[in-house]
Amino acid sequence: MANKEIPYKIYLSENEIPKAWYNVRADMKNKPAPLLNPGTGKPATAEELTPVFCKELVAQELNNNDREIEIPEEIYNFYKMYRPSPLVRAYCLEEKLQTPAHIYYKFEGNNTSGSHKLNSAIAQAYYAKKEGLKGVTTETGAGQWGTALSMACAYFGLDCKVYMVKVSYEQKPFRREVMRTYGANVTPSPSDTTEIGRKILAEHPGTTGSLGCAISEAVEAAVTQPGYRYVLGSVLNQVLLHQSVIGLEAKAALDKYGVKPDVIIGCAGGGSNLGGLISPFMGQKLRGEADYDIVAVEPASCPSFTRGVYAYDFADTGRVCPLAKMYTLGSDFIPSANHAGGLRYHGMSPILSQLYDDGLIRAVSAKQTDVFDAAEMFARVEGILPAPESSHAIKAAIDEALKCKETGEEKNILFGLTGTGYFDLTAYEAYNNGTMTDYVPTDEELAVFRSHLPQIG
Amino acid sequence: MANKEIPYKIYLSENEIPKAWYNVRADMKNKPAPLLNPGTGKPATAEELTPVFCKELVAQELNNNDREIEIPEEIYNFYKMYRPSPLVRAYCLEEKLQTPAHIYYKFEGNNTSGSHKLNSAIAQAYYAKKEGLKGVTTETGAGQWGTALSMACAYFGLDCKVYMVKVSYEQKPFRREVMRTYGANVTPSPSDTTEIGRKILAEHPGTTGSLGCAISEAVEAAVTQPGYRYVLGSVLNQVLLHQSVIGLEAKAALDKYGVKPDVIIGCAGGGSNLGGLISPFMGQKLRGEADYDIVAVEPASCPSFTRGVYAYDFADTGRVCPLAKMYTLGSDFIPSANHAGGLRYHGMSPILSQLYDDGLIRAVSAKQTDVFDAAEMFARVEGILPAPESSHAIKAAIDEALKCKETGEEKNILFGLTGTGYFDLTAYEAYNNGTMTDYVPTDEELAVFRSHLPQIG
Repeated sequence: MANKEIPYKIYLSENEIPKAWYNVRADMKNKPAPLLNPGTGKPATAEELTPVFCKELVAQELNNNDREIEIPEEIYNFYKMYRPSPLVRAYCLEEKLQTPAHIYYKFEGNNTSGSHKLNSAIAQAYYAKKEGLKGVTTETGAGQWGTALSMACAYFGLDCKVYMVKVSYEQKPFRREVMRTYGANVTPSPSDTTEIGRKILAEHPGTTGSLGCAISEAVEAAVTQPGYRYVLGSVLNQVLLHQSVIGLEAKAALDKYGVKPDVIIGCAGGGSNLGGLISPFMGQKLRGEADYDIVAVEPASCPSFTRGVYAYDFADTGRVCPLAKMYTLGSDFIPSANHAGGLRYHGMSPILSQLYDDGLIRAVSAKQTDVFDAAEMFARVEGILPAPESSHAIKAAIDEALKCKETGEEKNILFGLTGTGYFDLTAYEAYNNGTMTDYVPTDEELAVFRSHLPQIG
Repeated sequence: MANKEIPYKIYLSENEIPKAWYNVRADMKNKPAPLLNPGTGKPATAEELTPVFCKELVAQELNNNDREIEIPEEIYNFYKMYRPSPLVRAYCLEEKLQTPAHIYYKFEGNNTSGSHKLNSAIAQAYYAKKEGLKGVTTETGAGQWGTALSMACAYFGLDCKVYMVKVSYEQKPFRREVMRTYGANVTPSPSDTTEIGRKILAEHPGTTGSLGCAISEAVEAAVTQPGYRYVLGSVLNQVLLHQSVIGLEAKAALDKYGVKPDVIIGCAGGGSNLGGLISPFMGQKLRGEADYDIVAVEPASCPSFTRGVYAYDFADTGRVCPLAKMYTLGSDFIPSANHAGGLRYHGMSPILSQLYDDGLIRAVSAKQTDVFDAAEMFARVEGILPAPESSHAIKAAIDEALKCKETGEEKNILFGLTGTGYFDLTAYEAYNNGTMTDYVPTDEELAVFRSHLPQIG
């Protein structure tokens, strides 16, 4: 095997976990558009956001200027339990593909939440605890975020109420039990426990739910109960900030071996993993210090970058959240129930949306069965059963590596392996049985959702 | 937190993975009793064992003298994909218990098989491939071994037929799908695909199966199909040999920080994890270089060490395998179906049985609900959802740490965290719902099984 000097897994030492998060907004010339108050149509102020979010997180959300934000010791100590995460050289995948490319992946799945979501969950739980709150509410799609938040809340002794997208709740009963083992209260969404849930159920009986619905319910539950705030696992600026640990560690590990990635690939749902992975590299790109080909991979069934529009939209189906300017399919877009796993969100992180609009990121989409083909190959040669979400990045990385095989280029490809598929076996079962299908929305379908966008900005 | 110098996770570098397995038999004054040919009642020869097992594995099985056996490069390269495994200092558990003890665990769950089983699976698959075989057959209980073997066979391109204990097959459909994703053929046992399976089904209709039944079926399937051999995930000397990587790495990591464990704890079903974890420490103990308090923890519902007898017994229910001298409950013992997870085997590794008989190991048993209490506490403070098997060791480690709290002793406690519980959520669900019960066989029940022991030796 090539380049014996680079180990299969590059581990940093514990004291190489970053001491501060990196805030890519500080280096963006075009800042992400501000959240708008849906009532006034004006940028939401800290005061307007604090009934929903913890104070310190509001400050992080609005902070476009500080390049570094120190990681509090309590969070750092928790990070030490599962970080640094390994950066893996995919020697076996390279051999399987017979590619001259060198493939690396940052593996965030080696913790019980099964994904990178824990990086932000522990931060958000910490600030809620510090503020003296009783608990937090949230939504979860595939269940990774809900699990991560349950773990974080158990650690700090906070109550945790999770609204879980109904299709995932039914396909993933085991996810529910992990959350319950960590003491969380889990409700399938839409539910009759909230006003907005009852409204959505009345309008769309039999709906399998969406992240947009679940967010509305979780926000309502937070603002109507004293001592609770809402927390979110993706999309928001604060989440991308926390997730910068992924990229900072990946870059530190590559730097140790003098490796500069040519292509950096991440799956994109709300954008938390992609935003975190690329952040320090994007920083260099924004400052003109280096160039990288940065690729977002999204499901063909929920293609916000590749087929959405860049516009102000509601973050949730119930339209209770602030408006965000983002690539979106429309806040009432609900992906087909046959779409497995996460990446079901109608919109995209405002930070990534701005970077994409500025031409600093490119985007591709992948069909579900192609993604599982890639997942199976990866599992067999690299020994890790990947999450369906992460497998979008695997699919794109394989495509890039095969391009290198044709051109003979020895590119360095870095991708984010955000999590494991241990709770996605219903989807794997469909794949194994040959009953998995692809769904791609038609232009007409997308036009209908797009016509519901608010007329702002 | 005490002793800041020791990190949360001690990682060895890739070139510190052991280059050779350690064969504890070389240092045993009283060697484990040989396997007997059930036909002749005499020690089974290599020739007699080769229709069942691969040649090189037979040689390892019978090798009581070589202290070190080199790890072939192909296996070593696979080890690099998921080893070295971390040795974790359980700072959060110590704080939760308010104990002066220092608790360490060797975590073997960070791979898709979810346990230490991969260490031997890849070795056994390698030797089968090297011998030019078409495939292997095996049994699996909780599913960890079957998953590990499926992964190993996928890596080397071998066919893999798994007989899965029926109760686990039903409780763990997702395990089946992982194995299928790795290309394995999975059959619930007892099945009507073998003669012995049909016989057991006729005699015990409605049985939920046992490892003993599944072994019989897998052996029959191996010896009746050309190009197949049988492989086993525990009990055998060769398996303990391969699992010595666990102990060798654990010792190397502790040595780096000058830590000598006072107590070493492992869960014990067939003994593969315990035997592997303790091997280098036991070597020192046997050579008179150091002393350790070594503790085997078994389920109260399947108590081979604490309530079994040391005698020659059949390794399988169908009585097709060689006889092994071991602590046993009798080969037709079938644990209660309410017992979750693995550790369901009626016997115990001959090596560990001899060491136990020589007073070099002590054994304790734990009830199921106590084990899950420990598992839940551990999950919440250490952030890892443990396998029910591993949680037996957690329970004993907590007990030891609480004893230290009473006496004020600063003991170093090392235990083996063999795997994760991601596929055991049905058991966690019963625990979360308060419907989990304890089962402890009566003396009368055990006496019945014991009366069926063969009259040998």
